[in-house]
Amino acid sequence: MSKIRQAACVGGGVIGGGWIARFLLAGIDVKVFDPHPDAERIVGEVLANAEKAYAMLTGAPLPPRGKLTFSKTLEEAVAGADWIQESVPERLDLKRNVLTQIDAAARPDALIGSSTSGLLPTDLQRDMKHPKRLFVAHPYNPVYLLPLVEIVGGEKTSAETIKSAMDKLVPIGMKGVHIAKEIEAFVGDRLLEALWREALWLIKDDICTVETLDDVIRYSFGLRWAQMGLFQTYRIAGGEAGMRHFLAQFGPCLAWPWTKLTDVVDLDDALVEKIGQQSDEQADGLSIRELERIRDENLVGIFHALKGGHGGKGWGAGKLLKEFEATLWASAGSDKTLHDTARPLRLVETKVSPAWVDYNGHMTEHRYLQVFGDTSDALLRLIGVDLAYVEGGHSYYSVETHIRHLGEAKLGHAIYSTCQVLSADEKRLQVFHTIYETASGEAIATAEQMLLHVDTKAGRATPAPAEVFAKVNAIAAEHAKLPTPEGAGRHVGQKR
Amino acid sequence: MSKIRQAACVGGGVIGGGWIARFLLAGIDVKVFDPHPDAERIVGEVLANAEKAYAMLTGAPLPPRGKLTFSKTLEEAVAGADWIQESVPERLDLKRNVLTQIDAAARPDALIGSSTSGLLPTDLQRDMKHPKRLFVAHPYNPVYLLPLVEIVGGEKTSAETIKSAMDKLVPIGMKGVHIAKEIEAFVGDRLLEALWREALWLIKDDICTVETLDDVIRYSFGLRWAQMGLFQTYRIAGGEAGMRHFLAQFGPCLAWPWTKLTDVVDLDDALVEKIGQQSDEQADGLSIRELERIRDENLVGIFHALKGGHGGKGWGAGKLLKEFEATLWASAGSDKTLHDTARPLRLVETKVSPAWVDYNGHMTEHRYLQVFGDTSDALLRLIGVDLAYVEGGHSYYSVETHIRHLGEAKLGHAIYSTCQVLSADEKRLQVFHTIYETASGEAIATAEQMLLHVDTKAGRATPAPAEVFAKVNAIAAEHAKLPTPEGAGRHVGQKR
Repeated sequence: MSKIRQAACVGGGVIGGGWIARFLLAGIDVKVFDPHPDAERIVGEVLANAEKAYAMLTGAPLPPRGKLTFSKTLEEAVAGADWIQESVPERLDLKRNVLTQIDAAARPDALIGSSTSGLLPTDLQRDMKHPKRLFVAHPYNPVYLLPLVEIVGGEKTSAETIKSAMDKLVPIGMKGVHIAKEIEAFVGDRLLEALWREALWLIKDDICTVETLDDVIRYSFGLRWAQMGLFQTYRIAGGEAGMRHFLAQFGPCLAWPWTKLTDVVDLDDALVEKIGQQSDEQADGLSIRELERIRDENLVGIFHALKGGHGGKGWGAGKLLKEFEATLWASAGSDKTLHDTARPLRLVETKVSPAWVDYNGHMTEHRYLQVFGDTSDALLRLIGVDLAYVEGGHSYYSVETHIRHLGEAKLGHAIYSTCQVLSADEKRLQVFHTIYETASGEAIATAEQMLLHVDTKAGRATPAPAEVFAKVNAIAAEHAKLPTPEGAGRHVGQKR
Repeated sequence: MSKIRQAACVGGGVIGGGWIARFLLAGIDVKVFDPHPDAERIVGEVLANAEKAYAMLTGAPLPPRGKLTFSKTLEEAVAGADWIQESVPERLDLKRNVLTQIDAAARPDALIGSSTSGLLPTDLQRDMKHPKRLFVAHPYNPVYLLPLVEIVGGEKTSAETIKSAMDKLVPIGMKGVHIAKEIEAFVGDRLLEALWREALWLIKDDICTVETLDDVIRYSFGLRWAQMGLFQTYRIAGGEAGMRHFLAQFGPCLAWPWTKLTDVVDLDDALVEKIGQQSDEQADGLSIRELERIRDENLVGIFHALKGGHGGKGWGAGKLLKEFEATLWASAGSDKTLHDTARPLRLVETKVSPAWVDYNGHMTEHRYLQVFGDTSDALLRLIGVDLAYVEGGHSYYSVETHIRHLGEAKLGHAIYSTCQVLSADEKRLQVFHTIYETASGEAIATAEQMLLHVDTKAGRATPAPAEVFAKVNAIAAEHAKLPTPEGAGRHVGQKR
C-alpha cells in the first residue's frame, strides 16, 4: 500500500486543520504554513475535536501521532513533503499564486492537492513548472471524519498522479472518488448548490422555516442518503420493474412547474436576517461547539451502525471504516515490543463514547463486557489468533465469564484494560481482566473468563496448534509468578 | 394523547402498504380497499418487511397487531374509520374522484389524508362535501421506517384538522411536519427534484457514473443530512461568526455558472439506458429484495445510533424513536396479567439484529449481557422500579454477573429470556436469567446476577422501600418453590 511519508499543509483553517488532523492521526508528520495570526489556535481546536472523535470511532490501534510543525515560510513547510495540500481562500489568483510557489519549492515528485471546492484544476495549474502533479482533492467538513475526497485532474495532470493520489488516501481512512471530467464545483457542490438554491426560495417565500426544512431532510431522505445515495435508493423505489421503469414513470415530472430553480434568489439583507433568526431559534441555545460535538458523536454512531450493515460485512462509510481498521491492525501486529509479560498485559485503551452511556452518563452494563471482549481479542492477536487465523476455521470462544463492578466508567472518560493469564492448557485459556479509569488509576470492573480453543466449523473444542499454545504458555508461565488477583474464583453472592 | 381507533387505506401499493403496516403495528385495525389483483400480495410483502424491521428497531413492547381486512368496496372500507388514507396513483382526476367517493361514505368527523407527493390539497378537495377534513399527508418510502409526514392543508382545510392529524401521528411513531403554505411538491420533493435534475445532467454529460454520484453523497453530506439537515449543518460551517456570516460568504456563489438547472434534461431512451446500465453495475448482483433488507437494517442501525446521540438524550430520528418507545412502555405498563409467577418469568422477546453479530453471523459476546440487562430491567419495572423511580434518585445496580454460554444465537433468530429470582432482601436481589432460542426452545446462555438497591446520588446501597420490597419478595417466595437452576452458584472453571 502506498503511504504518505511527510505531508505539508499550506493554509490551516477549518479545512486545512481537518487535513492536518487526518495526517497526524495516521502517524504522518505534518509541516504547516499559514501566516494567519490565529492559525495555531484554529488548528489546535480542530485537532482536539478530531482526537475526541477518533477515540470513539475505533478501538483499532492508531499509530503514534505524527509530529506537527508550524513553519515560518512556505518553502520550509513544503521542502521535504511528498503530499502537499493547499487550503487557502477560494480565489483563483490567490490559489494560482500559492500553488506556483509550492511548485517551485517542492520536490519534483511530490503530489500537490488543492482543497478548492469549485475552481478548475486546469486553471490552477496554468503557471506551474510541473503541472502534471497538481490535482483537486476536495474534502468535506469535518474533514477528520467525513471520508469523501473528490479527485479531479486538469488538462496537464498525469494519470499516474491521479492513481497515486487515490492510493495514498486509503491508509488515512479516506475515500477518493475520481471525477472523470473537470467542471466547476465538480459533483458534490453541484448537487449541494441545486438543493441550496431551492431551499433559499422555500424560506424566502415562507413555505416553511429553516427548522421545518431541516426536519423534512433528516426525518426522511437524509436517512436514505447516508447509506445509499440517490440512484441506488431510486432503484429500490422502482421495485422489481427496475430502474428503467422508474425513470419512465418519474421522467415526466421534470417538466412540471415544480421548482423555482430557473430563477436566482436575491440573498438580500432581509433574507439573510430571516434565515439568521430562524437558525438561532432552531439551535435552541446550543453553541457551535456543542453542535460540533453532537454532530461528531452522531457521525461516529452512524459509522458504527453502517459497519454492522450488510450482514456484518459493512456498508458504505461503515465498510470503509472496517477496511481502515484492518490496515491499522495489520500495521500494529508487528509491534510486539509494547508488551512486558512480567506483569498483567495492558491491552485496550479507549474512551467512554456517547453510545455507551445511559441517560445518567454512566457506561451501560454490557459495554463493560464489550471492553473485556476486546481485551480477550487483543490477547488472542498477541498469540497469533488474528482475523486470518479465525478465517482459517479455528478460534477461541468464551464459555464462561464472571464480572464484578467496583466503580463507574463515565461519559468521555479514558479507560484501559489489563489481562492476567491465570492458566492455559491445549484447549483451555483462563484469564482475568481489569478495567481501570486512566485518570485515577482505579479499578472499576474485573472479569474472569474461560475460553476454549474451537474448530469453528465442527463447533467443538480442539487442541490449539503448537505455535499458538507455545505463545500463550510463555505468557502463562510469566503470569504464574504474579499473585492471584483479588476476586478470582468467586461465585455470585460469595462472602468476601 | 389522541389516537386513531380505526384506519382505512384506499390504495395498497408500496406507499399504501407502508401506511397499513404503520397502523397495524401500532395496534390499529385497518380496512383496505384496492381493486388491483396483486394488492394482497404487495401489502403482505411490505408488512413482512415492516415486521422484520420493527423486531430489530425496538425492544419496547408493541401492542397486539391490529386486524387487517380487505374490503370489497370503498364504502365498506371507510365506513367506520376515523383516519382514511388515500394512496392511489398520482393523477388529479383519479384522486379527486376517489376522495369524493371517500367523502360521501365516511363518517363526517373522519380525517382524510392524501399521500400525494405533489398535487395541491385545494385542487383535491374541490368536489368534496366536507372538504375541511381533507389534508395532504405525504410520507416517504419505506413508510414503515421513515418517520416524516408532510402535512399540508388546502384553502378549505380547517385548523382543527391539521392539529388533529399532527397529534394522531405521534402514537404511530411518525413525525408530522406542517408545511405553512401549499405549493406543488411541498418541501421534500422540491428539494429532491432540484438535486435530481442536476444529477441527471452529471450522468448525461459523463462527468461521473451513477455509482460515483451515490458515493459522493453517502461518504459526505448524506452522513451530515441524516442527523442535522441543511441549515443546521451550515450553521456549524459558519463557526463562531454565525449563520449570517456564512450566508454573506456563500451568497455570491449563487450567481456563479455552477449549475445547469436552468435547462431541463431530456430523459430520452439513450439516457434512460445509460442510467439503467450503470445502476445494474452498481447493484453488483444484489436483488431489490436484498437491497431493501440492507436499507432497512442500515436505517435501524442509524436510528439506534441517533437514539444514543446528544449525551444519551437522543437526536433527530433517534429522539423520536426514544419518545415512541416511551409511549409503548407506558401503554404496556398496566398489563400485569402477562406474568405467571409460579415459574420463571418470561420477560424479553427479541431478534438477533445485524448490528449484534460478528462476521460469522453469531451474536457478539456482549450482546448476551445486553439481553440479560434488559431482562433485569423488565423485572425491575414489574416491581415498580421504572424510569420515574430511577429519576427519583433510586435504582438497582448490578454488582456481579456470571455468564455461561451453552449455544449460539444467530442473525435474525428470535430469542427470549426468562428470570428466576433466587433470593431477595431489603438491599440485595439475586436473579438467574436464561436466554432461549425461540424456535428450538434450547437454552443458549445463562446469567446469574446480584443487584443492589442504591441511592444513586449518594452512590451507596440503601434498603428498598416497603412497596418495592413487597413486590419482589412475593415473586421470590413463589420462585423459592422452584428447583435451583443448574449452573447457579458456579465459579469460572468449576468442574461440573
